[in-house]
Amino acid sequence: MEIGRSIHRVDALDKVTGRAKYTDDFRGQGVLVARILHSTIANGVVKDMDLTEARKVPGVVKILTCFDVPDIQFPTPGHPWSVEAAHQDVADRKLLARRVRIYGEDIAVVVAEDEIAAEHALKAIKVTYEEYPVYTDPEAAMAPGAVAIHDEHPDNILRHTCFDVLTPGAGGRGVDEVFADPAYRHFEAHIDTQAVQHCHIENPVSYAWMEGERIVVVSSTQIPHIVRRVIGQALGIGWGKVRVIKPYIGGGFGNKQEVLYEPLNAWITTQIGGRKVKLELTREETFQNTRSRHAIHFDVKAAVDPASMRLMARTCRAVSNQGGYASHGHSIVANAVTGFRQTYPDAFAHRSDAYTVYTNLGSTGAMRGYGIPQCNFAGECFMDDIAREMGWDPMAFRLKNIMPLGYVDPTNGITCHSTGLAECIRKGAAFMDWDKLRAEYAKPQTGPVRRGIGMAVFSYKTGVWPISLETASARVILNQDGTVQLQLGATEIGQGGDTVFSQMCAQAIGIPTEDVHIVSFQDTDTAPFDTGAYASRQTYVTGKAIKKAGESFRAKVLDFAAGLTNLDRGNLDIRGRDVVSTVSGEAVLSLADLAMEAFYSLSHCEHITAEETVQCKNNTFAFGACFAEVEVDIPVGKIKVLRIVNVHDSGRLINPKLAEAQVHGGMSMGLGYALSEEMKYDDKGRLLNGNLLDYKLPTAMDHPELHALFVETDDPSGPFGNKALGEPPAIPVAGAVRNAVLQATGVAIHRLPMNPQRMVEAFTEAGLIEKGE
Amino acid sequence: MEIGRSIHRVDALDKVTGRAKYTDDFRGQGVLVARILHSTIANGVVKDMDLTEARKVPGVVKILTCFDVPDIQFPTPGHPWSVEAAHQDVADRKLLARRVRIYGEDIAVVVAEDEIAAEHALKAIKVTYEEYPVYTDPEAAMAPGAVAIHDEHPDNILRHTCFDVLTPGAGGRGVDEVFADPAYRHFEAHIDTQAVQHCHIENPVSYAWMEGERIVVVSSTQIPHIVRRVIGQALGIGWGKVRVIKPYIGGGFGNKQEVLYEPLNAWITTQIGGRKVKLELTREETFQNTRSRHAIHFDVKAAVDPASMRLMARTCRAVSNQGGYASHGHSIVANAVTGFRQTYPDAFAHRSDAYTVYTNLGSTGAMRGYGIPQCNFAGECFMDDIAREMGWDPMAFRLKNIMPLGYVDPTNGITCHSTGLAECIRKGAAFMDWDKLRAEYAKPQTGPVRRGIGMAVFSYKTGVWPISLETASARVILNQDGTVQLQLGATEIGQGGDTVFSQMCAQAIGIPTEDVHIVSFQDTDTAPFDTGAYASRQTYVTGKAIKKAGESFRAKVLDFAAGLTNLDRGNLDIRGRDVVSTVSGEAVLSLADLAMEAFYSLSHCEHITAEETVQCKNNTFAFGACFAEVEVDIPVGKIKVLRIVNVHDSGRLINPKLAEAQVHGGMSMGLGYALSEEMKYDDKGRLLNGNLLDYKLPTAMDHPELHALFVETDDPSGPFGNKALGEPPAIPVAGAVRNAVLQATGVAIHRLPMNPQRMVEAFTEAGLIEKGE
Repeated sequence: MEIGRSIHRVDALDKVTGRAKYTDDFRGQGVLVARILHSTIANGVVKDMDLTEARKVPGVVKILTCFDVPDIQFPTPGHPWSVEAAHQDVADRKLLARRVRIYGEDIAVVVAEDEIAAEHALKAIKVTYEEYPVYTDPEAAMAPGAVAIHDEHPDNILRHTCFDVLTPGAGGRGVDEVFADPAYRHFEAHIDTQAVQHCHIENPVSYAWMEGERIVVVSSTQIPHIVRRVIGQALGIGWGKVRVIKPYIGGGFGNKQEVLYEPLNAWITTQIGGRKVKLELTREETFQNTRSRHAIHFDVKAAVDPASMRLMARTCRAVSNQGGYASHGHSIVANAVTGFRQTYPDAFAHRSDAYTVYTNLGSTGAMRGYGIPQCNFAGECFMDDIAREMGWDPMAFRLKNIMPLGYVDPTNGITCHSTGLAECIRKGAAFMDWDKLRAEYAKPQTGPVRRGIGMAVFSYKTGVWPISLETASARVILNQDGTVQLQLGATEIGQGGDTVFSQMCAQAIGIPTEDVHIVSFQDTDTAPFDTGAYASRQTYVTGKAIKKAGESFRAKVLDFAAGLTNLDRGNLDIRGRDVVSTVSGEAVLSLADLAMEAFYSLSHCEHITAEETVQCKNNTFAFGACFAEVEVDIPVGKIKVLRIVNVHDSGRLINPKLAEAQVHGGMSMGLGYALSEEMKYDDKGRLLNGNLLDYKLPTAMDHPELHALFVETDDPSGPFGNKALGEPPAIPVAGAVRNAVLQATGVAIHRLPMNPQRMVEAFTEAGLIEKGE
Repeated sequence: MEIGRSIHRVDALDKVTGRAKYTDDFRGQGVLVARILHSTIANGVVKDMDLTEARKVPGVVKILTCFDVPDIQFPTPGHPWSVEAAHQDVADRKLLARRVRIYGEDIAVVVAEDEIAAEHALKAIKVTYEEYPVYTDPEAAMAPGAVAIHDEHPDNILRHTCFDVLTPGAGGRGVDEVFADPAYRHFEAHIDTQAVQHCHIENPVSYAWMEGERIVVVSSTQIPHIVRRVIGQALGIGWGKVRVIKPYIGGGFGNKQEVLYEPLNAWITTQIGGRKVKLELTREETFQNTRSRHAIHFDVKAAVDPASMRLMARTCRAVSNQGGYASHGHSIVANAVTGFRQTYPDAFAHRSDAYTVYTNLGSTGAMRGYGIPQCNFAGECFMDDIAREMGWDPMAFRLKNIMPLGYVDPTNGITCHSTGLAECIRKGAAFMDWDKLRAEYAKPQTGPVRRGIGMAVFSYKTGVWPISLETASARVILNQDGTVQLQLGATEIGQGGDTVFSQMCAQAIGIPTEDVHIVSFQDTDTAPFDTGAYASRQTYVTGKAIKKAGESFRAKVLDFAAGLTNLDRGNLDIRGRDVVSTVSGEAVLSLADLAMEAFYSLSHCEHITAEETVQCKNNTFAFGACFAEVEVDIPVGKIKVLRIVNVHDSGRLINPKLAEAQVHGGMSMGLGYALSEEMKYDDKGRLLNGNLLDYKLPTAMDHPELHALFVETDDPSGPFGNKALGEPPAIPVAGAVRNAVLQATGVAIHRLPMNPQRMVEAFTEAGLIEKGE
């Protein structure tokens, strides 16, 4: 079994020795540098640009402005694309913008021989603006009379959806009727989440040049095939004229699931005779001009049956601050309200009411969890608020309401093919000694330092079907020594994808993983099509393609072996490095010898390869729980996480050690989200802490030891029993920590992050700290 | 029809703008440089090497010597490889040699931070040798008592073959019996050819580094998949652990059909922790240490029937000076004696007697024509000598004896599926006004400057079947805009391969060539397998793979179109950029729309690609003739070519303009071979003119206008009616020029090159120049 082995990462050696090639390793002599001029207003129009002085700067090759770019609006998010116009992404972006919608808008670009010349020229460009009022808050942007940020959306509402989901259990009653039932207790809360950023190590960077009449772009991206498509759209050229190469990348977390600067760079090279040009964002530009997690404000209500401990109905109104550009559009808040509903698929009725609203803040987009960390925080706070009010144990309350095996979502048909959630909860509780600690910390605490234990659970779908297309291809190629190449369009983005893909391929063929050489870089000219790394989809969707291609390859090898050996094809199998007889159990031919015949036989030469497409029309839920024990220093508002564990049901683990590492990374992201991270804007729309000094990303020193446990289910819909693992670990952490703080202090926090300033404010308001102290 | 269009080269834009990437464009920061230490003796043994001073040179990273290399002998020629040991190439080479066999033997390598440090270190290495006698001539090397250059061959004869071929017309008589027939006239001659070199613009260069435990080599090669194999053999590692990338290359002409320095570079990187290292040969090293055309000495005899003008029997003894290493082994002289026989498949009997002999000169290998330019010179001199003696018109004599349509070679079964040779002769004669000029120049000429007209013809097989494996694969990939990628293992080496491959692919699918984007670089990790560019095989063998893959792709597209449109599959075809109904003749669906459905349909997504292997078990003969009109300045020995034309039957032309350019290049090479080029060695085995100043490669100024004409046959065995064109143009030039000189002066030259010194000697000996003048 190659599946389930904790082998070392296949890229470990290259990454620790520094030999691994990243985008910037594609630099070379004579490469030009492009630097972007950003607006100094957040809402308005560029009236004029004076380039006279800038053009005089020595080393400047070309200055291109928002007056020069093609009059084409294009979409940027990393979605698969749809042939139906109604399902296509919002195309609200040009390569450079005259209509300024965010502070730091891209309005011109200087191409120069080096960065210094480019920076001098940027400073010498004189811009005249017409300024409009700046909207930082969705409610202000939606207010009557507000200036439209995009003409297509006069009310600044990108999209609003509202619908009820009724289960058979509702007995024909609507949401309002269930809420009107006097047998049920009612609860409501307003919960705020903040904008945070991905903070991948490698900032967005690309190189672009021309080969013949085609454009080549090397980019740090999660989605090379989508980059190809969006460049084609943005430049108005055939998509086949674009070649995208993805080397190793230094993290993405969803920010590189969007096509932001590759089209601009591709266009630049066409304006300078196809010369090679580099476009790299600084960390400050990355904060300001790429994407962040949506700040979503939730108003949630619930009707609860005291007798059964069941949630009978809930409503969730969510208002999402989109910032200046649509990016992934309404998908993320839609996913949030759906995720809110799905973890506890209410006994009777649910109403989702979701707004995506343009403002003049930095645009928001995909980030690990895609709306679910936000709704999970809201939902899990709310669960503990209810439990506390009702005097219920939060764990017991959740166990009464979590999604059952076989659940079919009535809106999209996504089915719970497997669930280990209850077991995750029990396993986590046992690890933490929940019953004992929960009881102990429930005793009155009066000192300045108090302790509590809390939990949160989540569900998370795997991939995007049926909301969107799910498809992948894989190609397997025999080498002369009996090893194989595995070529994919799916991407290694630091998560260990290449390692588990190699294991899957080995498993499907029947050979050792060591004999699978994965082609790590994607080149859209030759790589099989795959939409890329997002939605925790690759092990599930691409995994099916790998399995299909591996099995197809295996069949071709065995056909060839049967021809060579004159043995019955039905009695042959591949085991290790041999073709074996299933009758005798003995090797009849080594794969290496078979390969040599396949390549070099004078009588029957065949270069054995297999390439297969899958379209995945299925989905499944992954689950998990987080338990946190905290110590709160009330006077200084400091939360110290003493112990924390995530317990995941992600189906079968392909590589347990890598899975554990993935959980650790997600937990770290969750702790930053919970305790310190927040993008702060002033009322002019300027980001105040857009750098890694002022933006409080936690360091290793800020973390407790991170524990990861698993409940392995065997999901029947997964290619190897596996389901989503990439995003889930980040989801439940904030809720668990918040609920531990609730037990420790009795204070119900409804806003993130729970940093010392906020906590002091909250404790002061709750009377735990005297006002004016 | 895409076949037959004289479109511009697909790489023209990149090559004229300088954007085309060659091996050296893979350099980067921190790359180390390797330089080789060459022996200062030609035959002997390295007894000791003192590295003390060399190691002290600042910047030296590593010094590796012949005492360090793996104890593995490997073969270097670019043959497909054979699974049968008897047919495998001679493995007589180590990465660095203790046993010195040529002057300038590779005995150590210095790896340094730059070339200067490396050169200083090379100079500081002290070597102690044991010296043996030096053999520059095969007869001396074969003499009893000569020291064995390779222990495996005590008599220094790498291989000797002698066999008779008797046709049914011989009536049961053997070669000797035919010669004994008193009805026939007998002729004999001794003809010498010289060693010349390819003189490709780009010297051999490679970069090597490690990725994980695998080795990556970027190399200027004609045969990337064979480079992969030989590196694996030389290092004793699985061939799947080697990745070879071939970018654009600056010419090869057969010298890059051998794997000379890539294995050394691959091994070097393994000795320095996988760091990237460059190994580039200087022009002087290229002359001394790569390969050259074999100097072959021919003794030929013929029995001619005066009545019928038929050649009744011939014998050909050929002794080939192999130099120090086997390289392509006996193949080239074997090809020469076979080619000698095939152009005029004798009425009765032929004896081939061929020797390949090790000497201490620079090793000889593949070069455009692979032995045929040598035997063609011998054969065509001999034909004119006979015709002159018999008083026959050389054209009429040839027309009586050339290979007929349907000829089947009795030794290898290669069949004449098509021939336009007689028409080539007539077309060339008409172009030159042969009859008139031949008659005019036959009149007595007495002045110092005399004129003559001469001709030569040739036959040339296409590819290497059945002597060796012929196989190729091709992959076609649909793009979203309805264009395609074409991926091959076959290589563009400057000859225009990529252009004609693209045309073939377009033809097979039914789309415009502009919609085929060829993947020009080969990466053995992902490129379909192909043995590479040699033997004029690619348009013929790879062409079949392209046709098969294109047709397979076309079928998949039409299947998909039938599913989309609900039209009868049998009534659909691809024309231009559309799927059309063959009933109405109208477009039913554009390929672009079809592609978008194939990529993005929610109901039936399929990434359409096709990958196919062909094994080519066929061969065919290409033909041609050269006519030259010369003016000879007898006192100074100067031959001026006034007019020259090559007329080729290469089957259908894929791209007539490219074909013409190919012929021009070959004619230029033929003129250098005829008139000026020769590698000169002293008796110590030292090459005296191993640089482009002293080696007299003709320049454009040395050439008359070059004319290329074609007789297009439609060869039934070729994928598109085509057959060999790459090598043939170089073959007949020297013979035609020599025969024109014969007519002009009456002097029969039997040795190349016909440079002024030789001509003055010959004219002096013939009495045209007085001795002692």
